[in-house]
Amino acid sequence: MKIDVNVDMGESFGRYILGDDEALMPWVSSANIATGFHAGDPLVMERTIAWAKKYNVAVGAHVGLNDRQGFGRRQINISVEELKSDILYQLGAIDAFLKIHNMKLQHIKPHGILYRMVGEQEIYIDAFLDTVELYNKDLYIMLHTGCEALKRAQKRGLKTAPEILIDLGYDAEGNWILERIKKERSPQEVAARALRAVCDHKIDTVAGDLIPVEGRTICIHGDAPNAVSVAKAVRQALEGAGVELAALDKSM
Amino acid sequence: MKIDVNVDMGESFGRYILGDDEALMPWVSSANIATGFHAGDPLVMERTIAWAKKYNVAVGAHVGLNDRQGFGRRQINISVEELKSDILYQLGAIDAFLKIHNMKLQHIKPHGILYRMVGEQEIYIDAFLDTVELYNKDLYIMLHTGCEALKRAQKRGLKTAPEILIDLGYDAEGNWILERIKKERSPQEVAARALRAVCDHKIDTVAGDLIPVEGRTICIHGDAPNAVSVAKAVRQALEGAGVELAALDKSM
Amino acid sequence: MKIDVNVDMGESFGRYILGDDEALMPWVSSANIATGFHAGDPLVMERTIAWAKKYNVAVGAHVGLNDRQGFGRRQINISVEELKSDILYQLGAIDAFLKIHNMKLQHIKPHGILYRMVGEQEIYIDAFLDTVELYNKDLYIMLHTGCEALKRAQKRGLKTAPEILIDLGYDAEGNWILERIKKERSPQEVAARALRAVCDHKIDTVAGDLIPVEGRTICIHGDAPNAVSVAKAVRQALEGAGVELAALDKSM
Amino acid sequence: MKIDVNVDMGESFGRYILGDDEALMPWVSSANIATGFHAGDPLVMERTIAWAKKYNVAVGAHVGLNDRQGFGRRQINISVEELKSDILYQLGAIDAFLKIHNMKLQHIKPHGILYRMVGEQEIYIDAFLDTVELYNKDLYIMLHTGCEALKRAQKRGLKTAPEILIDLGYDAEGNWILERIKKERSPQEVAARALRAVCDHKIDTVAGDLIPVEGRTICIHGDAPNAVSVAKAVRQALEGAGVELAALDKSM
Repeated sequence: MKIDVNVDMGESFGRYILGDDEALMPWVSSANIATGFHAGDPLVMERTIAWAKKYNVAVGAHVGLNDRQGFGRRQINISVEELKSDILYQLGAIDAFLKIHNMKLQHIKPHGILYRMVGEQEIYIDAFLDTVELYNKDLYIMLHTGCEALKRAQKRGLKTAPEILIDLGYDAEGNWILERIKKERSPQEVAARALRAVCDHKIDTVAGDLIPVEGRTICIHGDAPNAVSVAKAVRQALEGAGVELAALDKSM
Repeated sequence: MKIDVNVDMGESFGRYILGDDEALMPWVSSANIATGFHAGDPLVMERTIAWAKKYNVAVGAHVGLNDRQGFGRRQINISVEELKSDILYQLGAIDAFLKIHNMKLQHIKPHGILYRMVGEQEIYIDAFLDTVELYNKDLYIMLHTGCEALKRAQKRGLKTAPEILIDLGYDAEGNWILERIKKERSPQEVAARALRAVCDHKIDTVAGDLIPVEGRTICIHGDAPNAVSVAKAVRQALEGAGVELAALDKSM
Repeated sequence: MKIDVNVDMGESFGRYILGDDEALMPWVSSANIATGFHAGDPLVMERTIAWAKKYNVAVGAHVGLNDRQGFGRRQINISVEELKSDILYQLGAIDAFLKIHNMKLQHIKPHGILYRMVGEQEIYIDAFLDTVELYNKDLYIMLHTGCEALKRAQKRGLKTAPEILIDLGYDAEGNWILERIKKERSPQEVAARALRAVCDHKIDTVAGDLIPVEGRTICIHGDAPNAVSVAKAVRQALEGAGVELAALDKSM
Repeated sequence: MKIDVNVDMGESFGRYILGDDEALMPWVSSANIATGFHAGDPLVMERTIAWAKKYNVAVGAHVGLNDRQGFGRRQINISVEELKSDILYQLGAIDAFLKIHNMKLQHIKPHGILYRMVGEQEIYIDAFLDTVELYNKDLYIMLHTGCEALKRAQKRGLKTAPEILIDLGYDAEGNWILERIKKERSPQEVAARALRAVCDHKIDTVAGDLIPVEGRTICIHGDAPNAVSVAKAVRQALEGAGVELAALDKSM
């Protein structure tokens, strides 16, 4: 049994350091690397991709809105044309760094509010899928399991990586809940949720119930203070249960 | 006899329109398209590249410093590592738009003060050449004829496109002179200079003398109010003298 | 009889020139000067305020969202706290330039989508009024006549400058219509609308009817290609009818 | 005996947290608050100034180059006019927040490379002094003790706050040394240097000698990981030696 574990990386910006990316690398199979719009910068991208290569971690483009001050979390009502060209720009940018390292881009994951915009908002869904399909049909589209964009991507025959957000809360309908003030979760708790999600296909809701969930990758947020401990606990728990961590091509 | 004529394009930014790019297209063979650092934005890049395709104009990456307010004309003492990653980022970004149009990047031309930094400043020259060579050995490097970076590029066996700035002033040593307040030149005057540079291999200095000059491309600045008239006059004068306009691969 | 005529100015940014501000100055009584978020930059602010002083034009802060690429026209879901601090920052910035010219800030006018956000969106209205009241009770608040924010401002005893947008279309309910592709209006047509609005208190709708309208200032958009001709025609028509142009303190 | 202790604050930016500003406040007498160009943002400024008021710490404008990615540490060859308007813009912006808190701006301190540019580079010195004098003659100008700008400021009769950088290295001529990789100094070591500088008017050089030094304020860098411990140790050492911490007006 195999599963992909993905984490956000490359979110530092100039003097501002966010997350301990190199320390995280050994514990995950995929890295969502910020492409310089909501976070990251060219120097950070270059450095983070070099680490991904060193630790044999697959790389995805963590594309975002062009809003560093809001960290890509504030909705901006961009046009559909702006969405397309913003995404192409970011995909190209990250591909340049991968090219010089002789690596391939594995997936695209929208960041922050863009995750909701292209995953769930009617105006953006098809434009997003068109853009990915146009640029590179081989990219896995990483979005929340069950979202409308994934359904349509599957109909189109695109590669998808439905994900489970094991360190966020869920409601009874299986929707994830954005936590303004992030709930502190212990590494053990997150690891237990990961095991349950991967092996039993269930996740607990904020009300305490267990609901069914299916995903091909699980996400750990890299900007939590204890992110490295969490990632390590998750990997060890999964491997202890006989689940192997593997990037998308190898786990699907 | 063939010559390339290049012009800066794609310098608009959101609501700010700079230059009449589509009107310029029919009169040139190469377009230096801004890559979103000193000018341009993803939507402008997409639009300008579509025009280049429509008019069969070859595309170059007009890479610049990340300084829209200064339009890439103010020296910023970036590190060598920043130079490399900033250039890679921009090259990748423009390649994404070319890819979806099934086009190839022909050349790289540094914009504004970066033209001097990587062309003449010791600290940056080799880092620039390393970056281009690493990313894409097939790119023509467009810089001022005779500059140190071109000499080294030729020694490395890289493709080069030495250029003559036919709408700027020259001193007796063949150095071009940055004009803060741009001298207004008539289309006829620029056309005459172009002819003389291409056919007689001479250009006039600010002192009025003629000095020798050699180039494989001539540059017209696209942000002058009369840029379209100038470009048209140059093309017509060259063609009238039996010189064909052709992009770099076809003119060299 | 007196009326204020206001126009947006100071929207240039670095190399990007927008509008012919000095040529507009003689024809208006108030200038809305961009404060560097959606448009403008410190050098442009300094220059535009110097012109306002030279031509004896009253100055307002044209505050906007921090989005130059979108020219402040794309809604960004900022928090109420961000709204407050963004507005304070911009008010202070413009006040610095007025201080060195020994001038006073006359009014505040939100730009673009912020005009709607703080004028009509419940979440932002009171936060906006709180901020203005806290910073400077003497500022006129310039918003569209009849909008909710103006009603509340008047209840609070704040100074208001209800405005009529004489170069935009209106629907039957008196709402102005954002024109993506701006309808070209002749100077004569805008001047006639201005006269009718000021003297007869009526404006025509897109359906061709006349509806009642009341305002203390009329707005001309400065970024139209024929803005200077329009402003001149409006002033001459008003003065021809015996209406004097006067800044807010003198016209109310 | 009295001395001012100043520290850089308000350098966070959106999601990026830099320094533990509130924890630092009790240990210093003056805060240099970033004004949104090299670091900080409007929300951070508002929050940091509220803390300064709560802890009765005097506030200075920490003005910088408009370069967040470079954190204001890369020289940008701005024009003298740009310098003036950039500084005015930042001074006005911070004054808006102080106004609503009924506080006064105590000093101006240029950040990063701007500290050298306006302190030592001939092209910028007088323009900087002109700007401060024009905007607010009561501001203390905080720069390195002995620099050319301070000498000229004193000749002009402006208020000055010569400072000693007690956590940086010095050469034999009394020049401070920019440390790319900051030397870790223990709180005890910095406190001992502070005591020696304030009481004995001496500082040690990187070669190990003691040279004379005079200052009216001492600077601790707030972005070191142990900044709070250092600030606390410095204050306690000074107070233990009978030296009172006091903001500039009270210490001079």
